[in-house]
Amino acid sequence: MVEPHTTTTVAAANATTTTRFGILGCAGIARKVSRAITLSPNSTLHAIGSRSIEKARTYATANGFPSSTKIYGSYDEVLDDPEIDAVYIPLPTSLHLHWVVRAAEKKKHVLVEKPPALNVKELDVILNACEVNGVQFMDGTMWMHHPRTKIMADFLGNSQLFGQLKAVQSSFTFSADSEFLENDIRVKPDLDALGALGDAGWYCIRACLWAANYELPKFVTALRNPIKNSVGVLLSVDASLHWEDGKVATFHCSFLSNLTMDITAIGTKGTLRVNDFIIPYKEAEASFSTVSEAWFTDMDLEWNRKPSEHIVSADLPQEALLVKEFSALVDAIKHGGALAPENKWPTLSRKTQLIIDAVVASIDKGFLPVEVVY
Amino acid sequence: MVEPHTTTTVAAANATTTTRFGILGCAGIARKVSRAITLSPNSTLHAIGSRSIEKARTYATANGFPSSTKIYGSYDEVLDDPEIDAVYIPLPTSLHLHWVVRAAEKKKHVLVEKPPALNVKELDVILNACEVNGVQFMDGTMWMHHPRTKIMADFLGNSQLFGQLKAVQSSFTFSADSEFLENDIRVKPDLDALGALGDAGWYCIRACLWAANYELPKFVTALRNPIKNSVGVLLSVDASLHWEDGKVATFHCSFLSNLTMDITAIGTKGTLRVNDFIIPYKEAEASFSTVSEAWFTDMDLEWNRKPSEHIVSADLPQEALLVKEFSALVDAIKHGGALAPENKWPTLSRKTQLIIDAVVASIDKGFLPVEVVY
Repeated sequence: MVEPHTTTTVAAANATTTTRFGILGCAGIARKVSRAITLSPNSTLHAIGSRSIEKARTYATANGFPSSTKIYGSYDEVLDDPEIDAVYIPLPTSLHLHWVVRAAEKKKHVLVEKPPALNVKELDVILNACEVNGVQFMDGTMWMHHPRTKIMADFLGNSQLFGQLKAVQSSFTFSADSEFLENDIRVKPDLDALGALGDAGWYCIRACLWAANYELPKFVTALRNPIKNSVGVLLSVDASLHWEDGKVATFHCSFLSNLTMDITAIGTKGTLRVNDFIIPYKEAEASFSTVSEAWFTDMDLEWNRKPSEHIVSADLPQEALLVKEFSALVDAIKHGGALAPENKWPTLSRKTQLIIDAVVASIDKGFLPVEVVY
Repeated sequence: MVEPHTTTTVAAANATTTTRFGILGCAGIARKVSRAITLSPNSTLHAIGSRSIEKARTYATANGFPSSTKIYGSYDEVLDDPEIDAVYIPLPTSLHLHWVVRAAEKKKHVLVEKPPALNVKELDVILNACEVNGVQFMDGTMWMHHPRTKIMADFLGNSQLFGQLKAVQSSFTFSADSEFLENDIRVKPDLDALGALGDAGWYCIRACLWAANYELPKFVTALRNPIKNSVGVLLSVDASLHWEDGKVATFHCSFLSNLTMDITAIGTKGTLRVNDFIIPYKEAEASFSTVSEAWFTDMDLEWNRKPSEHIVSADLPQEALLVKEFSALVDAIKHGGALAPENKWPTLSRKTQLIIDAVVASIDKGFLPVEVVY
């Protein structure tokens, strides 16, 4: 907000302005993100477009969109609206290449659902389009933006409390119902061909990279016999990431099991566990546990200490914090004098997508290890 | 105890008598087990033998053994003591074959530290010796005997609350100091050649089998690049177990990380987690958590429920419950009319050892999958 006593020139340089969002499509996840756009203090929901204007109108009404929200009967109309700064793209992954590139060419900043692309080759076209058009790119990995994530990372980075990372185990599973397993875009080879790997696995891979402070592994191996549906889309898969220094991460992602989302990171001196890393049990506060230098009492009868629970409050839901962060970056480009978009987020997307590619390649090669090169 | 009003005949058939233990060697773990023998209501510590009688005497004194405990300067003297019913053998694994077979031939029931053998071939000689001599065999996997383990197994077996098992992640790591890494028997190829796999990995493998209700996997794969010491003993290794129906378990075991001992078992309808499965944080009570049919609230904002913590009290430490169970089986053979030793325990040992063998074979074969056949 511009303070009344500042001059116009200073205000233009420092002001936080509102990033006006357009949404492409009426995906289920857009309900959550449209709420986040409304909750975030530096963004507004400006428009939604669908291939059917009737569908867009019904969706906007059903989800309580502000009455000022413009309703469009095509994605292109959203991109052509000069009042829109940024678009949120929750379309099926197979449509990302086309629509993200088009949005970037129309100078719209892009928040895109994960996985951002079907593979790194596509993602590189997307990221290049964003870069040459000077627009911010970010994928929709919400847990990155919860304050808990930073506090957990501080623990992992503490050489006294955690030491060096040695192993990560992560999982994300949920028990999809028969409707999902038959009709959801995430089981369709022409829409989200990466299936459980691109959806649930994306989070596990990001977690493994996050725990390793985003150092890429040397190679990745898919574990044998992933489960696919009748048209070849992955429903459940395990993989391992292997770093140069010997640390190892394994993950399990699946549409076929009870909702579970774990990271266990084990270091030379400490252990961190979180069991709701993707979506915290509750919005207002989230917890994790740590223990350092655990050992046994005399005769190995008991432990010298139990893990401690840490609770982190969040003033906004993590998806609103995502929107806030994204909008601040957009604002910095628009008004704050940022010379170029923030490169952190496209880099994290690309590293995660590289591992996705490597897991797919390992499956294709009969579960051989696949080297990872940035 | 024989009730005063029972006749001698009835007493002989039904009485719980005391199993008299001899201990072979002065291993560190024997301090804990000798305490357990003392705590268990149906066993007594009768003798300890070491290759040096002085060492045995010092050990018995230092650990407060009853003054009646006989001190022997050789293992054979323990085996030749006619008053001893059973021996506890915490010797290095490479000595198990010799001493378990010898004990069985002397008609001593055998409680042996894990891993019970260097490989299944050796274990089969051991188990055959116990069988033909009619003595009970049990390995020292203490957590099997904690009442929590049975209660957790009930959850896993509950088709409404847990459904079908789909995935297991387990870990057992501890941060060995430089003294251990140089001198402990578990890093010596001539003593405990299986290293971290035979020690820490034994527990993880048992956990994976336990979660699968002891159904053997179809094949096992070691993950690439385990860490070995300069003489080739495993210090850290990961492996995966793959069942016919598609369920998968992965485990990480290591001497190089902070003390951690986890099982996460994910079923179609439920999830179970325990973070101190091998040695509970506290002796008197132990906990685990479960959640069933977890899902999201509207818009995937929060969870419909958090996991519940369950606390299980134990009237005796789990190692005393192990001794009590073993002693009861010995008693059943001695006085209770059992026709043969209980086969459950040797079977579990053999299944666990089979997986150890498969992991070793997979490493030797360049990390190819190795079929598991009982």
